[in-house]
Amino acid sequence: MTPRTDVEAVETANTAFYEAMERGDFEAVSDLWLTDGEAAETDTDTVSCVHPGWPVLSGRGEVLRSYALIMANTEYIQFFLTDVHVSVHADTALVTCTENILSGGPAEEGADLGPLVGQLVVATNVFRRTSDGWKLWSHHASPVLAETDDEENAEGGETTA
Amino acid sequence: MTPRTDVEAVETANTAFYEAMERGDFEAVSDLWLTDGEAAETDTDTVSCVHPGWPVLSGRGEVLRSYALIMANTEYIQFFLTDVHVSVHADTALVTCTENILSGGPAEEGADLGPLVGQLVVATNVFRRTSDGWKLWSHHASPVLAETDDEENAEGGETTA
Repeated sequence: MTPRTDVEAVETANTAFYEAMERGDFEAVSDLWLTDGEAAETDTDTVSCVHPGWPVLSGRGEVLRSYALIMANTEYIQFFLTDVHVSVHADTALVTCTENILSGGPAEEGADLGPLVGQLVVATNVFRRTSDGWKLWSHHASPVLAETDDEENAEGGETTA
Repeated sequence: MTPRTDVEAVETANTAFYEAMERGDFEAVSDLWLTDGEAAETDTDTVSCVHPGWPVLSGRGEVLRSYALIMANTEYIQFFLTDVHVSVHADTALVTCTENILSGGPAEEGADLGPLVGQLVVATNVFRRTSDGWKLWSHHASPVLAETDDEENAEGGETTA
């Protein structure tokens, strides 16, 4: 076991997932989710996904359809990841991160791009080690609805280097 | 491997977690989270928790403090779990469920109980097999902000038996 290398590999897979979303690259996003073959050890062994404010989506078909839908309605999306934390145990990895999202929908009459919207979202991503690299077993993202002032102050000012 | 038995054991641990919350039993909730010993295989191997609308909490200390805080501000809480889905792979299990929550805060002047509030929340709970049973590695709960009418209708009317 080489934990350091595992952590780096998982972080790379996690970054690749968000970069594929930014490019609107459906094939790349699909490729990062566990396939039926990899997930079919038992009949209960399926992927799941929760988008911010959504109910649970279960199974590769339902999950991938949701990405197709989101991509069709998203002209522009950028993820600034912060607080990325990777926890690896054997062949499973847990990633938590803050997704600072800037996105825009399709253009409205005459405009090049729909209005840009900023969103503060936190995610828990569960990856599994496969012969083809680390693949997503679960993605759960949710809006941060109220930031406590105390925590912000306790952590002090952030540098913008 | 006896997948069916694993699924049942994980479901039991998941139910025990919510029942401990309902009883306001801090010790039982603590006992269901991985301990430092179990989680310390690598220094990156820590528990994480996201309450609905909250940022990520990392590490057993931060996570358990949040439960103490929630219990101190919750006079009454009941979870009606639906759509419980368990996916087991080796020593890790993924549970998704809908938490239909009814809760009330401390009583306001003269009343026995604060006003009851209903909440629709979905959760992804990741458990790890330990010598002491299945323990929580991660809990991520988030509010369902918009229910699509289509899905409701497609599933037909629910009985209230």
